[in-house]
Amino acid sequence: MGAFTKKEYQFLSELGLGPRNPGCYVNGSWKGSGPVVTSLNPANNQVIAEVVEASMQEYEEGMHACMDAAKMWMQIPAPKRGEIVRQIGEALRAKLQLLGRLVSLEMGKILPEGIGEVQEIIDMCDYAVGLSRQLNGSIIPSERPNHMMMEVWNPLGIVGVITAFNFPCAVLGWNACIALVCGNCVVWKGAPTTPLITIAMTEIVVGVLEKNNLPGAIFTAFCGGAEIGQAIACDTRIPLVSFTGSTKVGLMVQQKVNERFGKCLLELSGNNAIIVMDDADIQLAVRSVLFAAVGTAGQRCTTCRRLLLHESIYQSVLDQLVKVYNQVKIGDPLEKGTLLGPLHTLASKENFVKGIKGIKAQGGKILTGGSVIESEGNFVQPTIVEISPSAPVVKEELFGPVLYVMRFKTLKEAIEINNSVPQGLSSSIFTRRPEVIFKWIGPHGSDCGIVNVNIPTNGAEIGGAFGGEKATGGGREAGSDSWKQYMRRATCTINYGSELPLAQGINFG
Amino acid sequence: MGAFTKKEYQFLSELGLGPRNPGCYVNGSWKGSGPVVTSLNPANNQVIAEVVEASMQEYEEGMHACMDAAKMWMQIPAPKRGEIVRQIGEALRAKLQLLGRLVSLEMGKILPEGIGEVQEIIDMCDYAVGLSRQLNGSIIPSERPNHMMMEVWNPLGIVGVITAFNFPCAVLGWNACIALVCGNCVVWKGAPTTPLITIAMTEIVVGVLEKNNLPGAIFTAFCGGAEIGQAIACDTRIPLVSFTGSTKVGLMVQQKVNERFGKCLLELSGNNAIIVMDDADIQLAVRSVLFAAVGTAGQRCTTCRRLLLHESIYQSVLDQLVKVYNQVKIGDPLEKGTLLGPLHTLASKENFVKGIKGIKAQGGKILTGGSVIESEGNFVQPTIVEISPSAPVVKEELFGPVLYVMRFKTLKEAIEINNSVPQGLSSSIFTRRPEVIFKWIGPHGSDCGIVNVNIPTNGAEIGGAFGGEKATGGGREAGSDSWKQYMRRATCTINYGSELPLAQGINFG
Amino acid sequence: MGAFTKKEYQFLSELGLGPRNPGCYVNGSWKGSGPVVTSLNPANNQVIAEVVEASMQEYEEGMHACMDAAKMWMQIPAPKRGEIVRQIGEALRAKLQLLGRLVSLEMGKILPEGIGEVQEIIDMCDYAVGLSRQLNGSIIPSERPNHMMMEVWNPLGIVGVITAFNFPCAVLGWNACIALVCGNCVVWKGAPTTPLITIAMTEIVVGVLEKNNLPGAIFTAFCGGAEIGQAIACDTRIPLVSFTGSTKVGLMVQQKVNERFGKCLLELSGNNAIIVMDDADIQLAVRSVLFAAVGTAGQRCTTCRRLLLHESIYQSVLDQLVKVYNQVKIGDPLEKGTLLGPLHTLASKENFVKGIKGIKAQGGKILTGGSVIESEGNFVQPTIVEISPSAPVVKEELFGPVLYVMRFKTLKEAIEINNSVPQGLSSSIFTRRPEVIFKWIGPHGSDCGIVNVNIPTNGAEIGGAFGGEKATGGGREAGSDSWKQYMRRATCTINYGSELPLAQGINFG
Amino acid sequence: MGAFTKKEYQFLSELGLGPRNPGCYVNGSWKGSGPVVTSLNPANNQVIAEVVEASMQEYEEGMHACMDAAKMWMQIPAPKRGEIVRQIGEALRAKLQLLGRLVSLEMGKILPEGIGEVQEIIDMCDYAVGLSRQLNGSIIPSERPNHMMMEVWNPLGIVGVITAFNFPCAVLGWNACIALVCGNCVVWKGAPTTPLITIAMTEIVVGVLEKNNLPGAIFTAFCGGAEIGQAIACDTRIPLVSFTGSTKVGLMVQQKVNERFGKCLLELSGNNAIIVMDDADIQLAVRSVLFAAVGTAGQRCTTCRRLLLHESIYQSVLDQLVKVYNQVKIGDPLEKGTLLGPLHTLASKENFVKGIKGIKAQGGKILTGGSVIESEGNFVQPTIVEISPSAPVVKEELFGPVLYVMRFKTLKEAIEINNSVPQGLSSSIFTRRPEVIFKWIGPHGSDCGIVNVNIPTNGAEIGGAFGGEKATGGGREAGSDSWKQYMRRATCTINYGSELPLAQGINFG
Repeated sequence: MGAFTKKEYQFLSELGLGPRNPGCYVNGSWKGSGPVVTSLNPANNQVIAEVVEASMQEYEEGMHACMDAAKMWMQIPAPKRGEIVRQIGEALRAKLQLLGRLVSLEMGKILPEGIGEVQEIIDMCDYAVGLSRQLNGSIIPSERPNHMMMEVWNPLGIVGVITAFNFPCAVLGWNACIALVCGNCVVWKGAPTTPLITIAMTEIVVGVLEKNNLPGAIFTAFCGGAEIGQAIACDTRIPLVSFTGSTKVGLMVQQKVNERFGKCLLELSGNNAIIVMDDADIQLAVRSVLFAAVGTAGQRCTTCRRLLLHESIYQSVLDQLVKVYNQVKIGDPLEKGTLLGPLHTLASKENFVKGIKGIKAQGGKILTGGSVIESEGNFVQPTIVEISPSAPVVKEELFGPVLYVMRFKTLKEAIEINNSVPQGLSSSIFTRRPEVIFKWIGPHGSDCGIVNVNIPTNGAEIGGAFGGEKATGGGREAGSDSWKQYMRRATCTINYGSELPLAQGINFG
Repeated sequence: MGAFTKKEYQFLSELGLGPRNPGCYVNGSWKGSGPVVTSLNPANNQVIAEVVEASMQEYEEGMHACMDAAKMWMQIPAPKRGEIVRQIGEALRAKLQLLGRLVSLEMGKILPEGIGEVQEIIDMCDYAVGLSRQLNGSIIPSERPNHMMMEVWNPLGIVGVITAFNFPCAVLGWNACIALVCGNCVVWKGAPTTPLITIAMTEIVVGVLEKNNLPGAIFTAFCGGAEIGQAIACDTRIPLVSFTGSTKVGLMVQQKVNERFGKCLLELSGNNAIIVMDDADIQLAVRSVLFAAVGTAGQRCTTCRRLLLHESIYQSVLDQLVKVYNQVKIGDPLEKGTLLGPLHTLASKENFVKGIKGIKAQGGKILTGGSVIESEGNFVQPTIVEISPSAPVVKEELFGPVLYVMRFKTLKEAIEINNSVPQGLSSSIFTRRPEVIFKWIGPHGSDCGIVNVNIPTNGAEIGGAFGGEKATGGGREAGSDSWKQYMRRATCTINYGSELPLAQGINFG
Repeated sequence: MGAFTKKEYQFLSELGLGPRNPGCYVNGSWKGSGPVVTSLNPANNQVIAEVVEASMQEYEEGMHACMDAAKMWMQIPAPKRGEIVRQIGEALRAKLQLLGRLVSLEMGKILPEGIGEVQEIIDMCDYAVGLSRQLNGSIIPSERPNHMMMEVWNPLGIVGVITAFNFPCAVLGWNACIALVCGNCVVWKGAPTTPLITIAMTEIVVGVLEKNNLPGAIFTAFCGGAEIGQAIACDTRIPLVSFTGSTKVGLMVQQKVNERFGKCLLELSGNNAIIVMDDADIQLAVRSVLFAAVGTAGQRCTTCRRLLLHESIYQSVLDQLVKVYNQVKIGDPLEKGTLLGPLHTLASKENFVKGIKGIKAQGGKILTGGSVIESEGNFVQPTIVEISPSAPVVKEELFGPVLYVMRFKTLKEAIEINNSVPQGLSSSIFTRRPEVIFKWIGPHGSDCGIVNVNIPTNGAEIGGAFGGEKATGGGREAGSDSWKQYMRRATCTINYGSELPLAQGINFG
Repeated sequence: MGAFTKKEYQFLSELGLGPRNPGCYVNGSWKGSGPVVTSLNPANNQVIAEVVEASMQEYEEGMHACMDAAKMWMQIPAPKRGEIVRQIGEALRAKLQLLGRLVSLEMGKILPEGIGEVQEIIDMCDYAVGLSRQLNGSIIPSERPNHMMMEVWNPLGIVGVITAFNFPCAVLGWNACIALVCGNCVVWKGAPTTPLITIAMTEIVVGVLEKNNLPGAIFTAFCGGAEIGQAIACDTRIPLVSFTGSTKVGLMVQQKVNERFGKCLLELSGNNAIIVMDDADIQLAVRSVLFAAVGTAGQRCTTCRRLLLHESIYQSVLDQLVKVYNQVKIGDPLEKGTLLGPLHTLASKENFVKGIKGIKAQGGKILTGGSVIESEGNFVQPTIVEISPSAPVVKEELFGPVLYVMRFKTLKEAIEINNSVPQGLSSSIFTRRPEVIFKWIGPHGSDCGIVNVNIPTNGAEIGGAFGGEKATGGGREAGSDSWKQYMRRATCTINYGSELPLAQGINFG
């Protein structure tokens, strides 16, 4: 694949990357005869490397092989599949620093976040290994003598995973680790703008498959865009499509998949609020808001976009927040001490500019930030906006470090504002009162899938289920019983006697 | 409501029914100012009684009151909600015979099946009472000190339930019993052709609510047609719509509901096969096929529509089956000894005629039956058809007592045929070999949601999850963890310390 | 059985009781040829009725029939067993007031508590009905191809239940409801001093069995003393003995049962503390302490015996408490308004006197109460004692309304005192600080089986598991997975292939 | 520690062993000032190395440090504890071959079994890592408004593990992996005759602790005999003692532990039968019996000791079995191809001789084997005995390769024989009939904790729960919910409102 001329890119060759890379892994080998795309460094918009994406013919070849692989993979005992995932975890662990660096370079998030993201897949692998002996079905008492009723879980076959640029590793990890131990092959389409991560991750995964003499087609990966995405959505060979991205595209995918009687697992837009009550630990709240609103340059689905402050502490929290915002070190995400890297693409930067314009037009008052930073890269200022909860922009997800601040008087009012947006991913309250905590997590509290107390909206652990309600799509990934979505459930009743008693005591004939 | 003139309808007044009945229960009282419809007796197509359906204004009034009721109902402790459901069960038990009779009269199924269906709701009530103390969330170990991670389940608010004519009671029971203990109000639209059952059931349920001084709006019921159905599908106040009916309509409902970010629980078409292996207990198999194919006049979603016979026993099973088909007593479903009542409507009968024509056109050979029975009612003959598994009609659900018979050589082939239709509800095999049983329920076996051995495709117990894959819609009702669909899941993390450690060991700022 | 001459005892005939009653139900009929005992009214120590206890021959006859019944009962499908328990619940519900009255009369607790105790069995019945469809085993992924691994739960056969006088109904309910749905027969020995309750309860249970044409021997009951208890402990036909009583006797029972390879479920002594923190809702705390320390005349195993007050609120809480103690209405437990009835027996009263003497000898200061009340009955004063946590009496369970009050400075100190006694049943803290709540329920918090916050130590709900650690015996009854103790677990692996792969990849031969 | 003079022992130095070894690891360092014992090679009874066992003073020192370590270890988040166990698994994996070799050398089992045993701990580590995020408590619906009911699991503190010579690694692994992730420190006493394995295992575990700067006292290990065992049994600092060994000693341990209110997890004697039905796959059965009866020289707790043959295949199975017995290669367990190594000790050999004498005295007929093999080592012949099921010796566990063969006519009879011994560990049936399989695993089937079909009695997978009923002690180790035994359960109810509603609707005061 040739050699990188830039010294700072030389580590990429340790991840199997070169200046020009075949962009799909199908039927156990690397190919690529589709469009040639360039991977850009968001910090300066210069080319890192080129990738040749998959053609539709390669897609077909990949799917064909994957179908074959699925038939054998689903018959391998789950704990043996777990052993493969364990080895994937070990292989990732060996490349943790390098992969973290690549995530930071190509996606633009700061290095600790890049490494944290890779750590998350490793954690997922460890978790999935244990799970491979716990994908338990049930034996349910039958009301009929000599009958055994069971709930049995079987693999789906193939799981399609379409991931977004903001978590180019971890979201694959959530899905693939679980899908694989559940007995499914994985077909992955990474984000069009993070192809190097897609390739590097795939290299590591398939290295383990090959070492174990398993068909590479168990893991099939495509760098590609909407055409490949569309193909996955419409492909009847893929019973489950796990899609991460915007609500708009997610709904289209869902419709396509439903029409062909497939299932979707959707992780769509968030619009997450932090509520700070009058009795909150203000210092804790301010640190949390900073991490939640500025971390990953506001490009997490769990980024805090709305800050709801009790009137009694409104001004004081805001003052402290503006102060820490002004101290945020902006710059090269790979550099030590940087807290805010660039937005992922030029388009994101333009979207930020457009967003700020809309905010102002709707009466939003910029308290700090609000501008792009002149540079080759996609840097923008971390921004705080004072605005009414009823302004239309507040209902939308502006993917950048823009925080809307609002004032409330009562818990009830704060919860109403929290629940007043279409999205339902994450939410957080800062308080020390048990009655507030339990109300917040109860039936009349937050309507989100993630409901935190005294921590930010972001930074979920893998042991819990990750995902959200309403326009966020309703899917759940990572822990809890998320694995059930990757399997099909069969209610089995075995009559081992020689009579035919009927349920509900019915007498027929 | 006046008095029934016909003697055989007089029992209806014990269920609170009269010759003309208001058809919706909204905001705690009976109303009806929409279209007037007649309920017909399928055995003779004569009018049983009239019903005045809900108007759209009444729909609005009902939903408005239901929203208010939802706010209070979700705060009542689950075990207290369970107590209400227990009383509903007792009230139903007191009317078991009468309700069963009404089901038989208005829907057309034979009396033992009518009573069995009511028994099924009673069972569901009993089950839901226990469940009301077991809607358990989880406490999940957090990787962060002084953090508590939990999975909390909260009510959705309102659950819309749209049921079909073939199980006018039981499907409501599956949904309402669970929905109610989970803390949801129920908005029910019964089938347009079974309004008396809708009214009688509602009377019993709301009688319990009223006795307990609870708002009647907790249970809101509409007799109505597509307009009300459409309204429910589009109503953002209804986070979950549970729909039972055809795949075609189900997909439309799903699309509407998804567009407004709601969730669906779908129980759609089935196309269920019974496989008889060479080592099967033939007598058991024949009895099972009879119950599965002729029961409820072939109008169950779990009706056996395809019979796959191993070549070695093909002729002998067929001979026995034709023989028992010829002995099936057809007639008034309320009469003792009747096994086959009428189809539900005249349209069903016409559809049968059309279906038989199509079967013949596609090479199907009628082995017995195939004709309608001349009478005032909607009676047709139980029919056996020899046909190729590849004939297009075999992929569709013909809602009547028509059984397609096919021949196979190997288990593999039989499973392929079983899985070759779009639907994925129920399936059954008759065999005595463990290796066949476990293959059948395993990854390479049946792709249905219900996978039976040595029992028919129909007649599920409530303890298991009921529902199917693929075009059947993927929903699960009744037992197992079906209740989770009626609640929203929140992953809650509470930081009760004063530090802010981050997951995945990330260090931010 | 003759008629009661006293008017206030006439209601007993409605429970099937007479002046002289056969005291055991064996092999489906009432017998009694052992010692004649009298049931006394604790409020006046007058005879209520006579009971003829079981002889050892009757014990043998009962066990013999029970063994036979066990063989058939365990084969009845669990949901059918649930239906029987449902009917028992209904039968109890019909007699709720009468039974509650009997409990109050014979045991001595106030009427609302008597009725509450009967309500608890009814709740247990309802709960067990649902459970009868959820006694789920597991299907666990096997590491070997063509192997199915399962965890199957089977009935034990017979469960022996030995109950104490203080909850003569509810503890039977906890055990019998679960034991029965799990497929076990029940052998019950009630407390020697509450034989009428034993008989009345048994009448109701066996009435249901008889109505369903089931062998009465499924439920076998003995009024009797130590001899019968000993027989149960040593009887190899009884795989599980559930014993409620003192730690001393419980340990003896355990040893006997273990020697013959049986299992015990022990609910032994408690010595329960309430901690009141400086930030507590004092009013809530005082009301709770009153209920916990005076309720059931201090004869609950969950009675609060130790009150730990933060020094800052020590005096104020104590003042309020003494005040409410002085207002407690003492008297006939059946009379409206009475809060404190008599102790159960004369021996209890004497034990109280002895206890007070010991307290004083060890430096305890009586703040209120401390004396018996001159009357025919077993009345004593509700008593508050100021004493050091290190006084030996504080480590013991004095079964009466005596509350030890202590002072502490820090949460750590309070928890240490809480955990410093041999018993580990219940405990409670009053606070409004999340960090205190979560510390209290965490690894360094209370070491008890019941760990409450802002509620008393007593008054458990049936949905949770009831029981305690250390000298309390470690058993768990009622909800959660307590049912597992009433079944035996089998780890089953079925090889349905024709190869013999070994676990851990071992190659043998 | 000096160097081994014998070449074949030199690999031991790679495990940190020398000719003379300190035999306890207390408070983070190796010590040993108690009795000096020698580790013997069972194949020749020559000394491998010397070990200086723990003194009682060292025991005290160890326990003291362990108590301190327990306080901190239980506060470390479970997933972090899981990470430590993961590293232990990696460290063991790196030494798999060496450790397996040591097990084979010191214990005497053949090398593939030695390696398999070490693999089992590694599997346990992997499993426990996943479990560390799934030690889930429950949130249970409360019947009281503004109350939250939870089941919380907390660590016990210290778990004492006393293991036997036959699984000197794996049993430690079952216990320690689970105990550690559950938050407990481990105090291990290995078998007196396998001290080198105890030391080598401990070296690996504590190497990981030290690398992570954790107190070594988290894992405290003693080589020692009855005195240390007794100390553990009586030590109130050890809430749970997991004991593996004979029923006789186990009962004594249990009694000691119960007296001080501690808990036991017992894995005691087995007496396991294989039933071969008339329709069995005879070849599969014969291979299974060979592995089950001769593997580990009959010194597994799951060794098959009783073979129940249906009369119709009795002679043919026996003929084949005698034939394969005669081909069993006996010899050095480290040598390739050996199937039968020596018994573990000279005492075992003597016990074998005594056992054979008893067998003959009770009418047993030796079909093959029955003698010791003249050599320096503890070799004996694999032995088949024809004997009546009622002979007293058949009820006992003779720890060697002695198989009792019996004849039966019906399944019922076979199950009765299976269940007729005091022990209840493992059992197996060979059949191809579903009705037999499900009867066997049902309420009237095997009464053992392990109930297999078409596989041997031994060779359990870690995903299931391992353990047995009756005289086997009732404990369960490894998978399923075995972890619950290593934690204490707290039923917590938090009132976050300001009212005090009572359960069961009680009204007090």
